[in-house]
Amino acid sequence: MDPIILLDYAGVAVFAATGALAASRKQLDIIGFLFLAGFTGIGGGTIRDLVLGVPVFWVQNHDYIVVCAAMAILVYAGAHLIESRYKLLLWLDAIGLAAYCVFGAWKGLVVTGSGVVAVVMGMLTATFGGILRDQIAGEPSVLMRPEIYVTAAMAGALTFTVLHIAGLPLMLSAGPAFLVAFLIRGGALRFGWSFPPYRSRPGRHPEDIP
Amino acid sequence: MDPIILLDYAGVAVFAATGALAASRKQLDIIGFLFLAGFTGIGGGTIRDLVLGVPVFWVQNHDYIVVCAAMAILVYAGAHLIESRYKLLLWLDAIGLAAYCVFGAWKGLVVTGSGVVAVVMGMLTATFGGILRDQIAGEPSVLMRPEIYVTAAMAGALTFTVLHIAGLPLMLSAGPAFLVAFLIRGGALRFGWSFPPYRSRPGRHPEDIP
Amino acid sequence: MDPIILLDYAGVAVFAATGALAASRKQLDIIGFLFLAGFTGIGGGTIRDLVLGVPVFWVQNHDYIVVCAAMAILVYAGAHLIESRYKLLLWLDAIGLAAYCVFGAWKGLVVTGSGVVAVVMGMLTATFGGILRDQIAGEPSVLMRPEIYVTAAMAGALTFTVLHIAGLPLMLSAGPAFLVAFLIRGGALRFGWSFPPYRSRPGRHPEDIP
Repeated sequence: MDPIILLDYAGVAVFAATGALAASRKQLDIIGFLFLAGFTGIGGGTIRDLVLGVPVFWVQNHDYIVVCAAMAILVYAGAHLIESRYKLLLWLDAIGLAAYCVFGAWKGLVVTGSGVVAVVMGMLTATFGGILRDQIAGEPSVLMRPEIYVTAAMAGALTFTVLHIAGLPLMLSAGPAFLVAFLIRGGALRFGWSFPPYRSRPGRHPEDIP
Repeated sequence: MDPIILLDYAGVAVFAATGALAASRKQLDIIGFLFLAGFTGIGGGTIRDLVLGVPVFWVQNHDYIVVCAAMAILVYAGAHLIESRYKLLLWLDAIGLAAYCVFGAWKGLVVTGSGVVAVVMGMLTATFGGILRDQIAGEPSVLMRPEIYVTAAMAGALTFTVLHIAGLPLMLSAGPAFLVAFLIRGGALRFGWSFPPYRSRPGRHPEDIP
Repeated sequence: MDPIILLDYAGVAVFAATGALAASRKQLDIIGFLFLAGFTGIGGGTIRDLVLGVPVFWVQNHDYIVVCAAMAILVYAGAHLIESRYKLLLWLDAIGLAAYCVFGAWKGLVVTGSGVVAVVMGMLTATFGGILRDQIAGEPSVLMRPEIYVTAAMAGALTFTVLHIAGLPLMLSAGPAFLVAFLIRGGALRFGWSFPPYRSRPGRHPEDIP
């Protein structure tokens, strides 16, 4: 198996785990675990493949669905043993983000040849599953949290794209790019890194507008 | 007309009606009825066709759009006569769920030949329109309700796929599968059937994490 | 450049600006501006192209992404100077709505030849970016506001489709259709135009159902 495919499986597996953890926080039943794990695990890659106009990965190879189901059952069996499920969710999400931004950028580059599209595909793949998870579970979107999130995906996708277009072989572009994304997101989680928010003047409510 | 196509029209029509009922609960205008009826009626089938990589059904045959519009007008004219619109919405949703999980599984099986993909397509088709409806109308997702929902779609899709792969003709696989899905969802609505929720320990709010 | 392509760029640019304005109201960082501008700017056209089964426009031509990024940076630099960002957001949204309902209808008509599908594609293209923006930013959907919104998109798409099928050249169909959509939406914003809501009896909460 091509080693870069490992990034794909890793992204699917950890995103599926974050979906199952969201289900445990919402006290859903086992089917709710399977459903949220599936949506989160394959959501980002599905939108990536649709937009690129290539066959959807899990329709061609249903092993990915089996991976999601296995993660859902594993979390269902063990989540109550974990002290802080939300913290675990955020760290697994960070791994998934790093894996998927690199894999998405690679697939975008292979299919279209455009570096700009590759970076956008990396960001889209890495963030869409989490957006779906938070929307369906009714949690505030992880994108709206103050710490750096999309930036990490963008940095990873950009690192991969620049290195790979510069001529480095696949794994020597993918490895550093994964690390860049993970370290930025991990640093944001651990140390609360954030950009200065746009505070010039907060928004008002629609009702306040004369 | 192939009898299985009836399932498709039935799914579109009743899901469109649930969208229109949601619009009536939100006191939208007639255009809001048309819009929510359309999104709910064709949403699940649209995502199914996109993921399968086949032409979207209502782009090929715009009768489906006319069906949605007719249901929206019908509900607009008559919804105030109904005692409990939310109850009606849930029961129509159950019929749509049963019709769509079978039709989605059939289409998934025809296009990909994989039983696993067929079951997932059945679940996706049956649940996606309702997810869209609840998200756009700003109602709590029907998936987050305690009673059995996705399970009914999974059971129907699984029944169809197993029977049809085992060699039964189309209608002898589709009929029992429709009944299985409808009876499970209907029993859940009538008797409050549910799986034990995952209650080991409820989730905490993000703010509580040290 | 074909003049109708201008409508496409105009729709992307003003929708991107509304996404960035939503980011400023939520006090996100610069990356949040880029992300919401991108989703809102290209969301509607992406779903249009996916449903029509044609290559996604910004994957073929990444200038559209550059336009979104430029709008995000512009708004980031200047939004605090604007007295009412929500009002500006609504007016730019009105321009985007008018541009996109015409362009979407044109593309739908060119690809499918069906007037019904063309009108639906116009409405979908014009409204989907705003739906994504409001969902991700966690704001109440603009579709749920009382004034006329989807109607304006429908009127514009219908005007274009009727005129163009009747044989008028492209720009003589597109110009009046743009004006129809913009004037209806603008009138709704300025004068609070709305259809009578469906008030026969408000909806009840799920919990109230016996």
